Amino acid sequence: MDGYRASVEDALFTLYQVAGFERVAALPDFAEVTPDVVDALLREAARMCTEVIAPLNAPSDRQGARWHPDGVAFPDGYGEAWRVLSEGGWIGLPVASEFGGQAMPLSLFNVLAEWVPAASLAFAQTLTLTSSAIEALTEHASPELQARFIPKLAGGEWTGTMNLTEPQAGSDVGALTTRAIPQADGTYLIKGQKIYITSGEHDMTDNIVHLVLARIDGAPAGTRGISLFIVPKRRVLSDGSLGPSNDVRCTSIEEKLGIHGSSTCVMAYGDADACEGLLVGEPHRGMAAMFTMMNAARVHVGLQGLGCAERAYQGALQWAQDRVQGVPVGTSGGARPIIEHPDVRRMLMDMRVKIEAARAICYRAGVALDLSQRHPEAAVRAEEKGVIDLLTPMAKAYSTDIGCEVASEAVQVFGGMGFVEETGAAQIYRDVRITPIYEGTNGIQAWDLANRKLRMRGGELWRAELDRLRAEATELETSSLASLAPPLRAAADRVQAVAEWCLERHDISPRDVAGGSVPFLRMFSETVAARLMASAARRSGDSNREVLARYFIERHLPLSLARGPAIMKGADDLFALNLPAIQR
Amino acid sequence: MDGYRASVEDALFTLYQVAGFERVAALPDFAEVTPDVVDALLREAARMCTEVIAPLNAPSDRQGARWHPDGVAFPDGYGEAWRVLSEGGWIGLPVASEFGGQAMPLSLFNVLAEWVPAASLAFAQTLTLTSSAIEALTEHASPELQARFIPKLAGGEWTGTMNLTEPQAGSDVGALTTRAIPQADGTYLIKGQKIYITSGEHDMTDNIVHLVLARIDGAPAGTRGISLFIVPKRRVLSDGSLGPSNDVRCTSIEEKLGIHGSSTCVMAYGDADACEGLLVGEPHRGMAAMFTMMNAARVHVGLQGLGCAERAYQGALQWAQDRVQGVPVGTSGGARPIIEHPDVRRMLMDMRVKIEAARAICYRAGVALDLSQRHPEAAVRAEEKGVIDLLTPMAKAYSTDIGCEVASEAVQVFGGMGFVEETGAAQIYRDVRITPIYEGTNGIQAWDLANRKLRMRGGELWRAELDRLRAEATELETSSLASLAPPLRAAADRVQAVAEWCLERHDISPRDVAGGSVPFLRMFSETVAARLMASAARRSGDSNREVLARYFIERHLPLSLARGPAIMKGADDLFALNLPAIQR
Repeated sequence: MDGYRASVEDALFTLYQVAGFERVAALPDFAEVTPDVVDALLREAARMCTEVIAPLNAPSDRQGARWHPDGVAFPDGYGEAWRVLSEGGWIGLPVASEFGGQAMPLSLFNVLAEWVPAASLAFAQTLTLTSSAIEALTEHASPELQARFIPKLAGGEWTGTMNLTEPQAGSDVGALTTRAIPQADGTYLIKGQKIYITSGEHDMTDNIVHLVLARIDGAPAGTRGISLFIVPKRRVLSDGSLGPSNDVRCTSIEEKLGIHGSSTCVMAYGDADACEGLLVGEPHRGMAAMFTMMNAARVHVGLQGLGCAERAYQGALQWAQDRVQGVPVGTSGGARPIIEHPDVRRMLMDMRVKIEAARAICYRAGVALDLSQRHPEAAVRAEEKGVIDLLTPMAKAYSTDIGCEVASEAVQVFGGMGFVEETGAAQIYRDVRITPIYEGTNGIQAWDLANRKLRMRGGELWRAELDRLRAEATELETSSLASLAPPLRAAADRVQAVAEWCLERHDISPRDVAGGSVPFLRMFSETVAARLMASAARRSGDSNREVLARYFIERHLPLSLARGPAIMKGADDLFALNLPAIQR
Repeated sequence: MDGYRASVEDALFTLYQVAGFERVAALPDFAEVTPDVVDALLREAARMCTEVIAPLNAPSDRQGARWHPDGVAFPDGYGEAWRVLSEGGWIGLPVASEFGGQAMPLSLFNVLAEWVPAASLAFAQTLTLTSSAIEALTEHASPELQARFIPKLAGGEWTGTMNLTEPQAGSDVGALTTRAIPQADGTYLIKGQKIYITSGEHDMTDNIVHLVLARIDGAPAGTRGISLFIVPKRRVLSDGSLGPSNDVRCTSIEEKLGIHGSSTCVMAYGDADACEGLLVGEPHRGMAAMFTMMNAARVHVGLQGLGCAERAYQGALQWAQDRVQGVPVGTSGGARPIIEHPDVRRMLMDMRVKIEAARAICYRAGVALDLSQRHPEAAVRAEEKGVIDLLTPMAKAYSTDIGCEVASEAVQVFGGMGFVEETGAAQIYRDVRITPIYEGTNGIQAWDLANRKLRMRGGELWRAELDRLRAEATELETSSLASLAPPLRAAADRVQAVAEWCLERHDISPRDVAGGSVPFLRMFSETVAARLMASAARRSGDSNREVLARYFIERHLPLSLARGPAIMKGADDLFALNLPAIQR
């Protein structure tokens, strides 16, 4: 009952009907990306996720990643699954052909970035990190470093990591103290400790390419003095062959709530003063390198939350269809499958519409990323850059929040069987809980939206979104979904009121904005999703999508919009409680 | 950082200012329950929970309860803590003196029923079940059986269990098939399998008193053919001494998401056809016996959810005060403790008001239970019986729902440290997830409220509650909290509209009511809590309580009330999605 089936149908519908993937397929760069190719590619990917990766999920959770002084052993089966992923060209799907990749759209890779974590969130960690490393190098490394490292990463021969956090530097990356000491040969000696390093050590590949943020001696304080380095586990000679081991060590792994099949490492760099690092890009520009890759990485974490929600929903739906218990209210006769109980049905509908909403946002963000990078017209690129900037914090935070909510609802549908580990519902509940935390906590995402994104280009981004909302409402008015136009307009008005309040308060009392940013992200995200879902339902005429759009807009969205007045009360109430200095 | 401190101050405030405990203390039965006695008793209980039980929580989670063919070993330290609990008279606190108890109010015992689970939810399981067993026997067993079993249970020499669930009979208890075969000596042979039996086997005491629901051969089908039996692990001779072992065996324990220190047992009764059961009360009246003890048991589970929330809040608050990270929005200067970040403060306020709300409901329910049983005036007893009937499903479902929500928020406050097990935040998140499931799922609680309780006495219960709400609003109007009167009145109007809609739909389409019952429970619960919190803040003049009441009513309650329109849309939408018959 713990199976997961990657749904090609849902992906195709959301790509084409919701996210406008045909605009990506029409780009000159993607001439071969015809519907047939997309269909065949997704079917192959779905088969791999369903048949190769999903079966690893439960056993790898029980076995876990295991640390020993010489390294970390990944769970049984990871190596073989990684080989399938590599040899199928999936890791390099969006990577340029010159680096051995398939040069396919990022928006298509995003489907895989939903499915692999849905199949196994723990296994997916290495893919997510390797993709991020490839992207960072693609954007910022010299051609020589790119040629030396990207093909190996894209081919899955090596894997990647991202090293930001230190014990005193979590959300505040600028507080990091890892040192980079310039050497005569142009390399750097790296010295410091990093924590929470996902896939920092494992036995799946010959080498691991650590991307490490560090401070070159004499650099300015804070984020403006941080540089990015490649620190391979084994040194890589200029011809690309493997040299001796580098002075890099995993000193322990964390005992975690979930994703037990993933290694979350404490990494020691340069304990023997012999850790070689290669500078990526310019000195002191490491944070910029981080930021440019965050749009993709954050959407990927959003897709992880979405994938976990989908897996949880599938399990709960199947259980509800199979489990016979009780006579449903309003029926006569004997016991029936619990899906016929109205409250179980309510839980499943709530889960389903949240999944549809998150998928709409994440997939639309992927399309925007492709268009912003590759569309021939500068105006379209700029407009789509605005969309991706606005949607990125929503994709990350909303999808991971609903990931946790849906996983919890799934446990409830299972009842007592949800609390025992054998059904798999409990594992998703444990695993997905990391997603609102890493890659920038959801609080940080919300502040990014309410602060930076609201003000970007003088407010153009969110105003453009509200224009799209109102235009969609106008379209709806002459459709069979006309009743959805007024609530959509009301949502636009409510979001506008709060956004304008935020902009006004920024200058007077920015903490008011910060205090309301999380509920604001929630209401804005669901408003955007409502538009995307309504629009797709209207254009497709698909009756199930109409049901979902109606349910979401009529029954779910009002709960979100009700947050508006509280947000606009500001933050004084938040600080009004008199707390003892220390509670112990 | 995983400490828990039982707060005598919070308990006293909620007992006296919120729940009206002085009315219990004024009962003739409780002449000695003076404020001094209450204070001393709670201080002693707090010390035990904080110093003896709380330290067991983390190590017992790691060690777990361990099954072997001869029994179950409880984690280290349980035996000693149980001895302290027993010898302090805490198990027998509300038990009559004739059975060796202390004859104290149930509403006072409820404080312990919050604190012990807060200290360790896994350890608390045996206390909860033993209390339930005592109550069932007190209400329904013959004087002879009472004398034989209750003193041993109240003194902690033996422990109790409740055996309802079978593989095919979960929420639908009436589907159970365990047999009871009458014997010539008046006893019964019990034969069947029970699952999810908490503390069904352990090594903490010499004997375990299983209360088992079974069907006497020839009994009617469904719930009207179920009888209640005492099935001791070791037989008990009529003089109370221990006889030979009974044919009762724990065949396995569940691997669970949380409460690892508790044994959740599969129990085999009568595998060797030699399992002796003693009938409790009349044949076929077992469900009635279950139902009369449910008011207390359900409030106890609500208190478990509340206790877990409180522990999670305390941990998050302390972490937020200690952890220095980032420059808070709107301040200049260096990094500060994260509690100064507005969004962290928002999370803590949300957690805190939910805790206050749940405690208000649970403690008020306890007071109602005492008054309904012991008040000299029949009219008061009847009125308070109405209060306890109305509040029981709220106490259970609301407190356990917010227990899960608060535990998840606490993980978020801890950030990355919340996802690793060492801080304890993750354990609470795992442990508390059982509470919305057992003792009647929260869906069942909501249906009890929206169906049985709304219609009880022709709707008198909920109308009386709305009268109290409006009366409180009138009081508020002439107080310093006058601004809370309009939102309270609006809440009363909204609840009334939905309740009347429910009553109307019951006759036309009861599934409409069932589909909206969970959101209805939420909005009604928070409306009741709003009244209790506002009233206590008004009467006490305590400035922190005023802050909390304002925050809850102005910022939190509107989210609940927004559920009203969706509820009144009925259930058709819930069944509108066209699902494939089986998704595999």
